[in-house]
Amino acid sequence: MIIILNVNIKSKNTKKIKRPKKLYKLSNFKNFLLILHLVMEEEKSRKRDRIIKGFSKLLKEDKLKAVSEYIENPGEFIALLKGFWYSDSEKQKQFDEFSENTISNFHIPYGVSPNVVINGKVYVVPMVIEESSVVAAASAAAKFWGDRGGFHAEVIDVQKVGQLHFCYKGDKETLKNLMPEIKEELLKSTKDITAKMEKRGGGILDIQLIDFTEKLKDYYQLRVTFNTCDSMGANFINSCLETFGHTLQDYFLRKGENVEIVMAILSNYTPECRVKVWVECPVYDLDHVDEHLDGQGFAEKFKKAVDIAHIDEYRATTHNKGIYNGIDAVVIATGNDFRATEAAGHAYASRNGHYESLSSCEITDGMFKFWLEVPIALGTVGGLTSLHPLAKESLELLGHPSAPELMMIAATMGLANNYAAVKSLTTKGIQQGHMKMHLANILNQLGATDEQKAAALVHFKDVTVTYAAVEEFLKNNG
Amino acid sequence: MIIILNVNIKSKNTKKIKRPKKLYKLSNFKNFLLILHLVMEEEKSRKRDRIIKGFSKLLKEDKLKAVSEYIENPGEFIALLKGFWYSDSEKQKQFDEFSENTISNFHIPYGVSPNVVINGKVYVVPMVIEESSVVAAASAAAKFWGDRGGFHAEVIDVQKVGQLHFCYKGDKETLKNLMPEIKEELLKSTKDITAKMEKRGGGILDIQLIDFTEKLKDYYQLRVTFNTCDSMGANFINSCLETFGHTLQDYFLRKGENVEIVMAILSNYTPECRVKVWVECPVYDLDHVDEHLDGQGFAEKFKKAVDIAHIDEYRATTHNKGIYNGIDAVVIATGNDFRATEAAGHAYASRNGHYESLSSCEITDGMFKFWLEVPIALGTVGGLTSLHPLAKESLELLGHPSAPELMMIAATMGLANNYAAVKSLTTKGIQQGHMKMHLANILNQLGATDEQKAAALVHFKDVTVTYAAVEEFLKNNG
Repeated sequence: MIIILNVNIKSKNTKKIKRPKKLYKLSNFKNFLLILHLVMEEEKSRKRDRIIKGFSKLLKEDKLKAVSEYIENPGEFIALLKGFWYSDSEKQKQFDEFSENTISNFHIPYGVSPNVVINGKVYVVPMVIEESSVVAAASAAAKFWGDRGGFHAEVIDVQKVGQLHFCYKGDKETLKNLMPEIKEELLKSTKDITAKMEKRGGGILDIQLIDFTEKLKDYYQLRVTFNTCDSMGANFINSCLETFGHTLQDYFLRKGENVEIVMAILSNYTPECRVKVWVECPVYDLDHVDEHLDGQGFAEKFKKAVDIAHIDEYRATTHNKGIYNGIDAVVIATGNDFRATEAAGHAYASRNGHYESLSSCEITDGMFKFWLEVPIALGTVGGLTSLHPLAKESLELLGHPSAPELMMIAATMGLANNYAAVKSLTTKGIQQGHMKMHLANILNQLGATDEQKAAALVHFKDVTVTYAAVEEFLKNNG
Repeated sequence: MIIILNVNIKSKNTKKIKRPKKLYKLSNFKNFLLILHLVMEEEKSRKRDRIIKGFSKLLKEDKLKAVSEYIENPGEFIALLKGFWYSDSEKQKQFDEFSENTISNFHIPYGVSPNVVINGKVYVVPMVIEESSVVAAASAAAKFWGDRGGFHAEVIDVQKVGQLHFCYKGDKETLKNLMPEIKEELLKSTKDITAKMEKRGGGILDIQLIDFTEKLKDYYQLRVTFNTCDSMGANFINSCLETFGHTLQDYFLRKGENVEIVMAILSNYTPECRVKVWVECPVYDLDHVDEHLDGQGFAEKFKKAVDIAHIDEYRATTHNKGIYNGIDAVVIATGNDFRATEAAGHAYASRNGHYESLSSCEITDGMFKFWLEVPIALGTVGGLTSLHPLAKESLELLGHPSAPELMMIAATMGLANNYAAVKSLTTKGIQQGHMKMHLANILNQLGATDEQKAAALVHFKDVTVTYAAVEEFLKNNG
């Protein structure tokens, strides 16, 4: 007997995908069961291979329903995702409108690191992060350095960058000579956009022509610097640049010439929107950090670990990742864009021709100094900073900082986490602290009782935590 | 008359910070008002300058209360933050335990990009992102390429890296000669940890001695490669490495020699845990992408934009930032660590001595090809992937992918967003699409009515959106 399998799955809003028919030959009972299994698997996988038509236009409830059809238990899925909706439906609508095709809210722990002293001011710093130990490490570092003069910070500059990329086949020297006239036209054409920003003390700072024709035929760039005050300024910068594009094109058309505008957009690389934070103390003030080393010994080992992150990119990546554990947690908590800060920072880390540590350490005349210098472009007005209720509260918690002040706070948490990580690594190792959190997570996952949890904490004090070991332990301590 | 101002703020759980007394000279009434204002400001700022003692040991409710004292209206703050707690207190406890000092949950929109075709399979991809346009752009790109053969992806390798950093003052050649023996001891010492991972097909792949002594006195590194199967493997790798540290130290102690273990930890730089994704089609299949360009013209302009991101780090940073808009959204939705993927990717972007684009474009024999090659280390078991209820659902929505499959999905969304961004930039510009979202946000912020919103959408179709312009518009259309 031959079974021809041709299951077609089709429902409202879906379009089936064509698949070849499958033939199974039925010979005996064992074979029958195998075929039954194959048929079921086939049906399950076909259920997934569907194209949903017009998804973005569906109502939220219908989107959720359409998506749930990919799930084994659709009802449970819908209930679970709805469980994460905000209770006030008006506010939930706002979350939905931040993005598109939204069907729920992802929850990330919102914690605080109290007692962070920066330039003599005390902050309670909000941190949004899903990784264990980060807030604890930042808080411990803040406490330690709070007793040693706190963190010191200064904003080096706040210039942001935008680029108009274009191709021009005409004479290079002529173009250069025309620049003063072109600049004037460009600035005139964006007056409507820049007026309000100028009132706030910002605006367009400079327009620079960069000749890239040796690397790419006919390609030039206008690199434009901006001051966007307390706003991130992305929309302001992009609006200026796109207007520049039209103006430049018109300018040359009037001359009977052509330029090709390739693109116009802000740059997330902001080496001139940079902040420096540091801690320092006499080495004898580090005497009791490690039980095996005196202050000098600890300082030297610490410095060695930081130096290694300057010469080896494998170490530098992880070292800087730890810095961003702290920075991003503040960036997210205040409604800023962490992809932008990450990209700027890591690109800056490679400015010397190889990827290296963003922080540095020095021991001079008995003084230990540890610092971080990093580009961070942040906003404290506009965007999500005022739209996301928790971002708004975060900024109030920080005392309504200006953008430069927020740059200092975010960078400080980066340095705090970096200090804590390198300290742990060079003293007791990270597994001891990290493993305690890991153990708690595994115990939760395995559904341990409170008694079992307490016993496990004692047992794993000197035993390596692995999933298998915890499972075994629970089995023996049921 | 002299007023001596010495306000002391002190409450339960706080310790006052010493501040110099301030003297104000009272001369006339205007001066009196000024002083009154200064005193009030002083008091407000002193309220912030407090150290909270024993914060981490407080109960969650008490933490929230302590933090609220920094806020103008503490009651409102507490109510707002509690509003973001998950309704089921047992589950909320789990969120609290992911991190430390947790007082609420930060909500980030959880959306989906449907109809993503990768290697012939259809995925509904969950994306967690707070930035507007990202999910819409990814979905549009997925639809576009879905009609042109979909995305193609391959995992190049899945090796992860760990490092044991140590200093050794002995003879270099002896050390090198001892390596086979040392390796054997190291592997023996981690047998208990690796047993389960080996059963799953993973384990330690290789141990390599790297001589860094020319760059840093006496400094060597053991670079260890791992296969951690479907787990991210951080704890596994770190446990192995810390054990290696003890073993190496013991080994030399038995020889009467010393090594200094500087640190032992995984590396987030994983060039050998890398994935490649690409799209391709005949250039004539791009004929209707832009109204002003035919397929060839669009393909060439697109390629130019990608090439620019290879030669200019200012552009490369933003270009890659757009890639991570897509990648991170998947990374977060599936409970993985986006700082790790960002650090690895951006470090990889600088591997050739300058920071450059992670994606590339080629037009050969009438074929347009656009690809992304990027290191991403992800897990689909362990960690938050199973602890965070929405991460768990994300993985079910994706059909329970293996780690390599998830690498392909995340990278695909990176390429999708990159394609969408470069396409917009090189055709109509990003402001048109972006500004619509921006307009919606400003309208919400200014509390516009539904009628005003509809009118604004029409009005701003060809008018540059700025906060001031929208404000003005609402004033005139009250």
